[in-house]
Amino acid sequence: MSEPPTFSETRRLTLALIEGLGPEDCQVQAMPDVSPTKWHLAHTTWFFETFVLEPHLPGYRTPSPAYKALFNSYYEAVGPKHPRPSRGELSRPTLAEVLAYREHVDRSMAEVSLEGELASLVELGVHHEQQHQELMVMDIQYNFSRNPLRPAYRSGPLPRCAPGPTPRWLAVEGGIHTFGTDDHHFSFDNERPAHRRLVDSFQISNRLVTNAEMLAFLEDGGYRTPSLWLSDGWAWVQQGAVGAPLYWHASDSDGWCEHTAHGDVPLDPHAPVCHVSAFEAAAFAEWAGARLPTEHEWELAAQGEDPAGARWLLEGPCHPTTAGPRFFGEVWQWTRSAYEPYPGFRAAAGAVGEYNGKFMCNQWVLRGGSCATPRGHVRSTYRNFFYPQQRWPFTGIRLARSGER
Amino acid sequence: MSEPPTFSETRRLTLALIEGLGPEDCQVQAMPDVSPTKWHLAHTTWFFETFVLEPHLPGYRTPSPAYKALFNSYYEAVGPKHPRPSRGELSRPTLAEVLAYREHVDRSMAEVSLEGELASLVELGVHHEQQHQELMVMDIQYNFSRNPLRPAYRSGPLPRCAPGPTPRWLAVEGGIHTFGTDDHHFSFDNERPAHRRLVDSFQISNRLVTNAEMLAFLEDGGYRTPSLWLSDGWAWVQQGAVGAPLYWHASDSDGWCEHTAHGDVPLDPHAPVCHVSAFEAAAFAEWAGARLPTEHEWELAAQGEDPAGARWLLEGPCHPTTAGPRFFGEVWQWTRSAYEPYPGFRAAAGAVGEYNGKFMCNQWVLRGGSCATPRGHVRSTYRNFFYPQQRWPFTGIRLARSGER
Amino acid sequence: MSEPPTFSETRRLTLALIEGLGPEDCQVQAMPDVSPTKWHLAHTTWFFETFVLEPHLPGYRTPSPAYKALFNSYYEAVGPKHPRPSRGELSRPTLAEVLAYREHVDRSMAEVSLEGELASLVELGVHHEQQHQELMVMDIQYNFSRNPLRPAYRSGPLPRCAPGPTPRWLAVEGGIHTFGTDDHHFSFDNERPAHRRLVDSFQISNRLVTNAEMLAFLEDGGYRTPSLWLSDGWAWVQQGAVGAPLYWHASDSDGWCEHTAHGDVPLDPHAPVCHVSAFEAAAFAEWAGARLPTEHEWELAAQGEDPAGARWLLEGPCHPTTAGPRFFGEVWQWTRSAYEPYPGFRAAAGAVGEYNGKFMCNQWVLRGGSCATPRGHVRSTYRNFFYPQQRWPFTGIRLARSGER
Amino acid sequence: MSEPPTFSETRRLTLALIEGLGPEDCQVQAMPDVSPTKWHLAHTTWFFETFVLEPHLPGYRTPSPAYKALFNSYYEAVGPKHPRPSRGELSRPTLAEVLAYREHVDRSMAEVSLEGELASLVELGVHHEQQHQELMVMDIQYNFSRNPLRPAYRSGPLPRCAPGPTPRWLAVEGGIHTFGTDDHHFSFDNERPAHRRLVDSFQISNRLVTNAEMLAFLEDGGYRTPSLWLSDGWAWVQQGAVGAPLYWHASDSDGWCEHTAHGDVPLDPHAPVCHVSAFEAAAFAEWAGARLPTEHEWELAAQGEDPAGARWLLEGPCHPTTAGPRFFGEVWQWTRSAYEPYPGFRAAAGAVGEYNGKFMCNQWVLRGGSCATPRGHVRSTYRNFFYPQQRWPFTGIRLARSGER
Repeated sequence: MSEPPTFSETRRLTLALIEGLGPEDCQVQAMPDVSPTKWHLAHTTWFFETFVLEPHLPGYRTPSPAYKALFNSYYEAVGPKHPRPSRGELSRPTLAEVLAYREHVDRSMAEVSLEGELASLVELGVHHEQQHQELMVMDIQYNFSRNPLRPAYRSGPLPRCAPGPTPRWLAVEGGIHTFGTDDHHFSFDNERPAHRRLVDSFQISNRLVTNAEMLAFLEDGGYRTPSLWLSDGWAWVQQGAVGAPLYWHASDSDGWCEHTAHGDVPLDPHAPVCHVSAFEAAAFAEWAGARLPTEHEWELAAQGEDPAGARWLLEGPCHPTTAGPRFFGEVWQWTRSAYEPYPGFRAAAGAVGEYNGKFMCNQWVLRGGSCATPRGHVRSTYRNFFYPQQRWPFTGIRLARSGER
Repeated sequence: MSEPPTFSETRRLTLALIEGLGPEDCQVQAMPDVSPTKWHLAHTTWFFETFVLEPHLPGYRTPSPAYKALFNSYYEAVGPKHPRPSRGELSRPTLAEVLAYREHVDRSMAEVSLEGELASLVELGVHHEQQHQELMVMDIQYNFSRNPLRPAYRSGPLPRCAPGPTPRWLAVEGGIHTFGTDDHHFSFDNERPAHRRLVDSFQISNRLVTNAEMLAFLEDGGYRTPSLWLSDGWAWVQQGAVGAPLYWHASDSDGWCEHTAHGDVPLDPHAPVCHVSAFEAAAFAEWAGARLPTEHEWELAAQGEDPAGARWLLEGPCHPTTAGPRFFGEVWQWTRSAYEPYPGFRAAAGAVGEYNGKFMCNQWVLRGGSCATPRGHVRSTYRNFFYPQQRWPFTGIRLARSGER
Repeated sequence: MSEPPTFSETRRLTLALIEGLGPEDCQVQAMPDVSPTKWHLAHTTWFFETFVLEPHLPGYRTPSPAYKALFNSYYEAVGPKHPRPSRGELSRPTLAEVLAYREHVDRSMAEVSLEGELASLVELGVHHEQQHQELMVMDIQYNFSRNPLRPAYRSGPLPRCAPGPTPRWLAVEGGIHTFGTDDHHFSFDNERPAHRRLVDSFQISNRLVTNAEMLAFLEDGGYRTPSLWLSDGWAWVQQGAVGAPLYWHASDSDGWCEHTAHGDVPLDPHAPVCHVSAFEAAAFAEWAGARLPTEHEWELAAQGEDPAGARWLLEGPCHPTTAGPRFFGEVWQWTRSAYEPYPGFRAAAGAVGEYNGKFMCNQWVLRGGSCATPRGHVRSTYRNFFYPQQRWPFTGIRLARSGER
Repeated sequence: MSEPPTFSETRRLTLALIEGLGPEDCQVQAMPDVSPTKWHLAHTTWFFETFVLEPHLPGYRTPSPAYKALFNSYYEAVGPKHPRPSRGELSRPTLAEVLAYREHVDRSMAEVSLEGELASLVELGVHHEQQHQELMVMDIQYNFSRNPLRPAYRSGPLPRCAPGPTPRWLAVEGGIHTFGTDDHHFSFDNERPAHRRLVDSFQISNRLVTNAEMLAFLEDGGYRTPSLWLSDGWAWVQQGAVGAPLYWHASDSDGWCEHTAHGDVPLDPHAPVCHVSAFEAAAFAEWAGARLPTEHEWELAAQGEDPAGARWLLEGPCHPTTAGPRFFGEVWQWTRSAYEPYPGFRAAAGAVGEYNGKFMCNQWVLRGGSCATPRGHVRSTYRNFFYPQQRWPFTGIRLARSGER
């Protein structure tokens, strides 16, 4: 277990993420699912203001009462909120004003004891901000991808991947195992409580699916073969005329290319495929004669690995660069599990209780963390979740199959 | 286990369902989710033609090659299909022509041995037609509900319910239990294979939630309290301005009324609430300090009851008329379980394999069967499934809670 | 001026139009713009009931008070109305009940003096019903065109057109002319008052644009050349992937075919092109180096011709069959004139005043009448109007150009 | 006729319009109809680059070939264009880069002779940029209005209007008059050619409709009375739940307020009503027992007035501040005339010919210029045009009625 991130380190890292971005870059919202960078900067600050400073720091004054609604994401208990698809319409407060808001709140946070009863609230705020760090990277990449100039978020070339290990099946023995967590370390409420579950023996791939493999699927007509797809997935393919992973595009001169945080690059055959929907992941698995793992299978298989060893955000290229044998840190891996409450799950009371439980509907669980996840943020019990059609997160594929063979 | 329905009984029952309906009634499609009655009559016939007669009866001739696409529902492997939302646009073939198509196919079926290798295909066709019998009742009721004249599908008054038993919790002991089925009786592929699962001890209500209880939720502001709802559910409430179960409407003279197969009737306080979405079911449970059961909990609790004892389609009023202590036969009961493959599930090869597996995405499991389900159609392992916002099926609520107390 | 149609002749002709149609055919509404045949039968009856019988026949009783709203089209002053796109959802009243409603109203109309003060109301009702006769033909054709079986509305083969006259320009001298009408013969309010207008000299084609000419436009890339189109028209082409007139479709065996009231037929090169939008008409004219006439130019050019000489509904094939030198009776001809009030126009008071004036926005004027227009219904001052994208009416093209040459 | 604006004055005025705006303000696009300020700055520059420099300045080099598509508005002949609703997604080029682009083009323009054959192209570019100056003001106001902080575009308070003159009818004698223009002064192609037209005698109001009058309409239930509205207008009211002019909102403390370029202010009863749709204008006129003037009536009535005397952009508050007796310079006045080609109109060849003609469909003509129109830009023959539902321009109402009285 790596050292938990501190409040000030986390706040600093968030600012580091906007290096090289101008006020215009921080303003854009190119689809309803993404938020302007400026909004992330403000909302993560609003979290500390709303849940720590206002109830617990006597005499605290906000720079603007309007921020309460402007930067509320989805907390119904806090009150009204600015509509999510309209976040990009707010030119004011300016980026400079939002940065001043951050400083104002950081100064006030210094007056609050981060130990004692507030410690767990602040810890939650830190982990919340880490989630938004990854969202910032995802959203910036999406916004830039919509600009025909295809700006790069990160300078420097993107290194090519070395070939990964030969794919093989790792056999995992079934039985009654414990999943989730009850311990005193930080975890989100959706990882709790720890519970036992009977899992059959299964096999899971030693590595991620690569771009070359996804290209073989594509070239074999995978995107045009309805029998490979879930019914909702096939409707999604047809309605959106989907024919490749999100950031792939065919170039006259360079063949298949991919828009990355480092700009457009020719497709790297050995890199893990990234930015695929759960529908694409499931169709690929079907084509490959396999299936996606359940979240319990994934957790069982990954329990032996220390996430701290993975490469993480700000430590190099902001793109998966190895399909190799790790479970953590390259791409989030779609599981075949719907996002549901664990047995015995109860949401916390009050606004903080809106953190996870109310989203347990129609989303799928992803595991493992990506190259854009902050160091120390994930663990084997960590449950990420998105709607199956969403693919602007750093999502990829790890295959499984039933039985011992 | 009741006697399985025969081919000819089933075909006859389908025709009995259109008694009292005219060609216009059988033509209407008042929303994309419903199908014209005429289309159900033809599609269930198409099933036997496509999967039994064409491959297995030498010299069989269809009345019209165009029916292959017109009456294909969703079988991609069979070929093109008429778009589902446009089924109501087809005035030809007429109802009379469709009834002649039924006779044509029934006559040809008499030339095929229903024993031997075709037996299981025919059995599947019979169960498939039973599913469409319930859909016909659902769809007719929806179509009629959209007509300001509020026609009744069934003649005769709807009897009022007697008060049900006092609600109490049935305690069920946890442990490793077997779910689903492997036996030789008919079941759908989604009920297979049998598998063991660890279930914690839980409690489940001895009866269904009633109209009176749902009205208390409504009058307590349940439809206006976001904290009770899943996030997707709250969005659904707001977008659709939902404020009551599907067929409820407030009348100046009679208070709350409900459109039923027997026409508009004043709300019956003791009847089980019907035609609610999974979102409403989950919000009600939250309000009541309980939760929905998982599909495994429901199956465990219901294992001791014989479905054959319940009241079924054509045996009385086509509306739930008791909230009393049975698990089967009044309303389908929303579970908290996403519709997912059982461990080890494999879809069959070919078109028939499209029966269930490809729908395992974003739907929720319902259990128990309703007053509109044909006798003999359900069992404790039976898994029905709908999207959580759908409420034109006969859907209701049974509460559960964790622990032994 | 031909003899005006009588009430009973008109009512009879309406019934003649449903010969060969079954209850299902009369039920269908395949897009919001069309209405079920049954609805037309009822609404034209409702008109006499609402505006003649209820106010003027003491003791008149309607078969059903619900019809007041069900069969109101757009008269806000009459009260609520069933939503237009949902007319096809009403299986009740049945076709038989609607036919009985017609008889009921016809019998009651016999008790009212059709002379005297009611004469003009009844005359309006007769002309109103004639408009719906053409709508019935249009709507049935559209509904049938959406059915892959492509039913024919009229039996018998559609005769092929003889080649029309060589196209040439008819020169019309400019000056101050009188348009519209003030006389005592029936006309709609939108043709009034008569007014003088200065028109420059112009030239107008002696015949309609043919299918062969439209095909040349298509094959020359007309549907892919933005410079030929109005901006709204080009957006319409791209959004709807429009590439040919409404009922044209390319067949493997027969080349271009057209769905007509007589079923699918190979495109007749000499027939006037029909079922084009104003956008297509204007783009074709641009491509041909000409333009559409204004409605005043058209009226001036057509003033010398007697509409009574044209072929009309029920007198032969229900499809344009000559592009030849008549202004009346083959296809409605798009003009370049927006549908606006004439100088001095005032709508009548009360519900009847909603007849025309409130539609004077964003529609274009068409002139001339079509093969589906009842005999005696049009005249040189007659103004029909549709939105420029609508093409299920029998719409075609006549070219014009400025100057004397 | 005031002195025509010069190239450099116009370019300078455009820059003056962004004083006080930051990069974020210049980035936002709060609905598809508006464009980011940055885009206007670039597009007006692109116009000179594309139509003057590239064809006529040997050796001219663009800062970026990508600008050709990014800043093309609607010129199909120039090539592809970035989708209009996605202009706000382009964070790059930055505002600073766009300002550098302006300087680059301005420097290059200095190398081109603005006399001689290019003079008319440059003059067109100047008038084009003036149009965008007004669009910039409109768009900024709309963007700011969507921000709950309600920023002000202009500093300083907005002066209250003095009561205007008592409303009375100005009688204008009918006859054959000449409209449009053929002279050598600049005008847009849609004002040409001059043509004669017969106009009946009419009366037109001596002043604009005021906020107080619009409030009386509102309080009299005007927005809830279908008989006052065009059919399309009533549908627009119901679909959008429209109940007041665009920027009006009811405040608990101050009654009706209006968002203006000077921020939120209490409604000024004597100010002309502004930001109304043609639907609202026509409904108000109906309610007032009058009608809107045709564009020819308006032109005839305004011919005697010199537009140069009006208050214009940058010369004071950016909001109408008098309803008084001028035809020019407070608000654009909706006419009852659809935007159609004048008799004999021919669009110019090539891309410049796309300037006006292709928009002559479903739009209505406005006359007179507004407080946001640059000095010298309008004249009595000037034809502005918008879709009848659009109301973010500075649009108001002047009444007319027929006859001499």
